[in-house]
Amino acid sequence: MTQIIYGIHPVQEALKSSHLQIEKILIGTQTPHPRLQSILDLAHKRNIPVTFTTRESLERVTKGGVHQNVAGFVKETLYAGLGDIFSHWKNEGGKSLFLILDGIQDPQNFGSLIRTALGCGVHGIIIPKDRSVGITSVAIKASAGAAAHLPIVRVVNIAATIDLLKKEGIWVYGASGEAKDLIYQLDLDMDLAIVIGAEGKGMRPLVKKKCDRLFSIPMKSPLSSFNASVSGGMILYETMRQRSLHDNPPSSPPSPARGEGLGGIDKPVFKTMG
Amino acid sequence: MTQIIYGIHPVQEALKSSHLQIEKILIGTQTPHPRLQSILDLAHKRNIPVTFTTRESLERVTKGGVHQNVAGFVKETLYAGLGDIFSHWKNEGGKSLFLILDGIQDPQNFGSLIRTALGCGVHGIIIPKDRSVGITSVAIKASAGAAAHLPIVRVVNIAATIDLLKKEGIWVYGASGEAKDLIYQLDLDMDLAIVIGAEGKGMRPLVKKKCDRLFSIPMKSPLSSFNASVSGGMILYETMRQRSLHDNPPSSPPSPARGEGLGGIDKPVFKTMG
Repeated sequence: MTQIIYGIHPVQEALKSSHLQIEKILIGTQTPHPRLQSILDLAHKRNIPVTFTTRESLERVTKGGVHQNVAGFVKETLYAGLGDIFSHWKNEGGKSLFLILDGIQDPQNFGSLIRTALGCGVHGIIIPKDRSVGITSVAIKASAGAAAHLPIVRVVNIAATIDLLKKEGIWVYGASGEAKDLIYQLDLDMDLAIVIGAEGKGMRPLVKKKCDRLFSIPMKSPLSSFNASVSGGMILYETMRQRSLHDNPPSSPPSPARGEGLGGIDKPVFKTMG
Repeated sequence: MTQIIYGIHPVQEALKSSHLQIEKILIGTQTPHPRLQSILDLAHKRNIPVTFTTRESLERVTKGGVHQNVAGFVKETLYAGLGDIFSHWKNEGGKSLFLILDGIQDPQNFGSLIRTALGCGVHGIIIPKDRSVGITSVAIKASAGAAAHLPIVRVVNIAATIDLLKKEGIWVYGASGEAKDLIYQLDLDMDLAIVIGAEGKGMRPLVKKKCDRLFSIPMKSPLSSFNASVSGGMILYETMRQRSLHDNPPSSPPSPARGEGLGGIDKPVFKTMG
């Protein structure tokens, strides 16, 4: 089967990716501007055929998505195997960081989580085959190209996969609203897989039971909640923070120079400000 | 002017909010289910008229939004004044936390930031009148009701407002991709306003210059970037983390009990797991 990707950034990243096979590029204008031209150059280098078509036809192909006059047909080899993400981790050499998404429904959230995961050094994402959004065109677009660079594995049974991860020495920590331990109270500087459940519903009970520990994110207002992609960002940020601190223990931080008496409102005191 | 809000959660929260004036509720079905019924009860309590209409008419009113058979007309007193957010802070008694959004364009990002801000204990959000998305129906919906509970101020001049904040003894820290200081290297446990710039473009130069300090979020992959609402979530999470640590200094955290030899894959060791 073929997958449609669209938008300048996603198509560009797909063309740079080594694990995607692009069959064809569609351009929706006869007068490509410089950013489209760079896509044409990339396609030419990789011997990928380019077809010039109309804007209207592109709109049909992308089902009304924000295509920015470019789409690509990708051979659906989009999913990686568990072995791929293990070797991605082992090639990098550090502590593992996998993200298990147990039933995310919204492709925007999924795409955003892929984007954040790539930025936070995640080695691979694991999703279930059933009751979960997959790598759709909308998710690829929302990932801002990141989907082309991060291996994503689709498994039949998340609980069984967690057992496999444990056998590799990986700790499995799950996000759960009711957990008493707060995310920053846990040591995340170990070989780790983090589980995030479905929007609203959270993890399924069996998956939750398989977790070595559960944690929650503190919340200051009973009237609020965090969106799945935002809370995923907080969790991955915290992991990155702890690991960076471990690699670069802090020297004593400079204390701000503006006095409590608040003079110098217009006198910037930090070099980074200019 | 009147503002349309729609969806069960946003309408429910608006009905509970003390600073919103709702003129009318529209229901798009003749047979309201329990969650709609609770909205009818709330409206009745607050003496707000309810009109039963068709699903199609609701679709027109909400311009095709996901209305879940309910919409409300809100009198546009949605924006607060600077004085309101100062008193919100002073009533709460702790360190200030304001969020300045210098030119966010996407209502989804804005709504998501409002939602996250409420959850992280922000006292108020400040946005510019020009070149910024306002509190639109889409933003209200994306805020999952949080827009009804967090004062949002619209000012003509962000730079001049920063001067006013400084006069109140508030430190102004800005997010900037190029800054050398990383967010977690800064002490955020002080009276603070955090500035986040527009998607892609960041803060305007004058606003940037007004900041006491600039910081960036670390990024593990040159191929990625963080979405504005996700990076906002990371920044506010970090502020909340530092302040919670200050209030509750950590005892030594329990170390996990699963041995390095990895027995006991099916034997949960933590009580929180069940």
